[in-house]
Amino acid sequence: MPESLSDFQKFRADLNEEILGCGHLPMKRFFALDHQTYEAGALGTKNKELLGLVASMVLRCDDCITYHIVRCAEEGWTRAEVIDAMNVALVVGGSIVIPHLRRAFARMREIDSLREK
Amino acid sequence: MPESLSDFQKFRADLNEEILGCGHLPMKRFFALDHQTYEAGALGTKNKELLGLVASMVLRCDDCITYHIVRCAEEGWTRAEVIDAMNVALVVGGSIVIPHLRRAFARMREIDSLREK
Amino acid sequence: MPESLSDFQKFRADLNEEILGCGHLPMKRFFALDHQTYEAGALGTKNKELLGLVASMVLRCDDCITYHIVRCAEEGWTRAEVIDAMNVALVVGGSIVIPHLRRAFARMREIDSLREK
Amino acid sequence: MPESLSDFQKFRADLNEEILGCGHLPMKRFFALDHQTYEAGALGTKNKELLGLVASMVLRCDDCITYHIVRCAEEGWTRAEVIDAMNVALVVGGSIVIPHLRRAFARMREIDSLREK
Amino acid sequence: MPESLSDFQKFRADLNEEILGCGHLPMKRFFALDHQTYEAGALGTKNKELLGLVASMVLRCDDCITYHIVRCAEEGWTRAEVIDAMNVALVVGGSIVIPHLRRAFARMREIDSLREK
Amino acid sequence: MPESLSDFQKFRADLNEEILGCGHLPMKRFFALDHQTYEAGALGTKNKELLGLVASMVLRCDDCITYHIVRCAEEGWTRAEVIDAMNVALVVGGSIVIPHLRRAFARMREIDSLREK
Repeated sequence: MPESLSDFQKFRADLNEEILGCGHLPMKRFFALDHQTYEAGALGTKNKELLGLVASMVLRCDDCITYHIVRCAEEGWTRAEVIDAMNVALVVGGSIVIPHLRRAFARMREIDSLREK
Repeated sequence: MPESLSDFQKFRADLNEEILGCGHLPMKRFFALDHQTYEAGALGTKNKELLGLVASMVLRCDDCITYHIVRCAEEGWTRAEVIDAMNVALVVGGSIVIPHLRRAFARMREIDSLREK
Repeated sequence: MPESLSDFQKFRADLNEEILGCGHLPMKRFFALDHQTYEAGALGTKNKELLGLVASMVLRCDDCITYHIVRCAEEGWTRAEVIDAMNVALVVGGSIVIPHLRRAFARMREIDSLREK
Repeated sequence: MPESLSDFQKFRADLNEEILGCGHLPMKRFFALDHQTYEAGALGTKNKELLGLVASMVLRCDDCITYHIVRCAEEGWTRAEVIDAMNVALVVGGSIVIPHLRRAFARMREIDSLREK
Repeated sequence: MPESLSDFQKFRADLNEEILGCGHLPMKRFFALDHQTYEAGALGTKNKELLGLVASMVLRCDDCITYHIVRCAEEGWTRAEVIDAMNVALVVGGSIVIPHLRRAFARMREIDSLREK
Repeated sequence: MPESLSDFQKFRADLNEEILGCGHLPMKRFFALDHQTYEAGALGTKNKELLGLVASMVLRCDDCITYHIVRCAEEGWTRAEVIDAMNVALVVGGSIVIPHLRRAFARMREIDSLREK
């Protein structure tokens, strides 16, 4: 079972701060570009977060999935919509995605608007 | 430079027919499920095709990218929107995605609504 | 060191139940198709489980490896045969597979018929 | 459409010869170990080739798939059995495997015992 | 057999120009950052190109391998050194890397300083 | 947050011993070849460890990253150089690498010569 959402966020914030402060300028720029990628452009932020979630799921990165689930909730995607997006990831990525899908469902239990009702 | 879009579509149709006719029922069901995945559910078809495009791009599958570019055009996504989605794939997947991005731009030249104006 | 086999199985059963009950029909169908894939067809169940194990190992998914190790033991594969299959995965997948191989050997310690004698 | 089987085999033989003759001993040893991996051990050669095929397909390497399809035919696997193994790869690896499945079916057209009858 | 080096370079230049001119600023920034990544920092350019080559090879991207082989030659790496680096990629990435290794050796035939003597 | 470095090393040593003692000769040879790969050849050991680190990072294997970070420190690479190499992995592999980058920075806290000063 994955660590709690707050433990994840604390570790993430702590280490991001160390990375951004390590004095490597191109690395800092990558983090800035990563942030900028999800800002509104031709597509809105809401759509982009769902793209980020599906990309994270087919590439099977639990931390990335957690991050985008939280952001998808903040952008107003509902549980049914998030699950429908995850199903695209499941079919594209195959059964190897299932353990990540289970952890994603466990993660949604920690998020008010995405919790089973 | 990739083969032409019509050559791709002919090969795809020819082999899909052979696969669907080969008598393996679960394989046929997978193809049906794959088709069903992009039908409207909690999310609409238009959004799902864009998810399929980004998933295909981070997993670096040129044929899948071609298929979803065509479908995204049919669903009404514009060139600017498709490029904005591809940028999410590029940042998530890294510079290793760039050769697929180049072939995706080459493919868009063959599609009226996605061509550079 | 990985969590215990019984913890894994409890978490897996709990979340699979939530996923199957979430009301997303195509997702439920994918799980059914996944199950059906390992039923006897042209190949027998025993052979298919070994295929599932090797596929899981080259794709480097610990949970999938655990699942198929348990099933391979149930189907009657011996420790020597499972190790020989894992060696195929190691050579195809490279040294990046080694950490998963270590965890697979640790997992076999929990399974009577696959334990070192 | 992929190049012909004989073109593949000629290119493969030509380059393997250059690699084995390049004077890099560990690289030569890797090739020897790769060969040895499919020799009979706890598992027989026939079973190992099918494992190699499924591993190649989930990792989406057309040349590796071609090589193992040819070897599976030589070991006596039938068309129905090879397709059943490929279905495991399809479900584990997802729809991203489909273009490789199409090329695998095209390749089987060039092999007598695996051709559609 | 892969397309010629000059065909690759022409297609690459043509499409890179279209991408950089497409008006998507973050995409343009990614390309700039990618370029900047291989400039001298704590590590020199020569070392970084070899890192880029090995990264490209374990991720199995032929176009990226071609690009870094050319750059490694320009930076003064010898045939023996490039082969030794490729061997690291082979052992880390496994036999699935072999088809890319063959194409990399074929590519070296087109580059004076990396050709077999 | 990852387990401690000493826990990792104890688990690794314990399981490697079991694997090497399991009586599967080709598997034992793979481990020998893996070791040999990082010995001085046309390239020196120091350079090869950095290649191993970058390969491990783009393939997103935390245990492999930990192993090569320790070895890079032993070979005399500085914190700034290791970070510069990791930046190559980040740009090649994309934002999906970031969680592994965070864990790599956390790991460096446990290694004297790579710790933030």
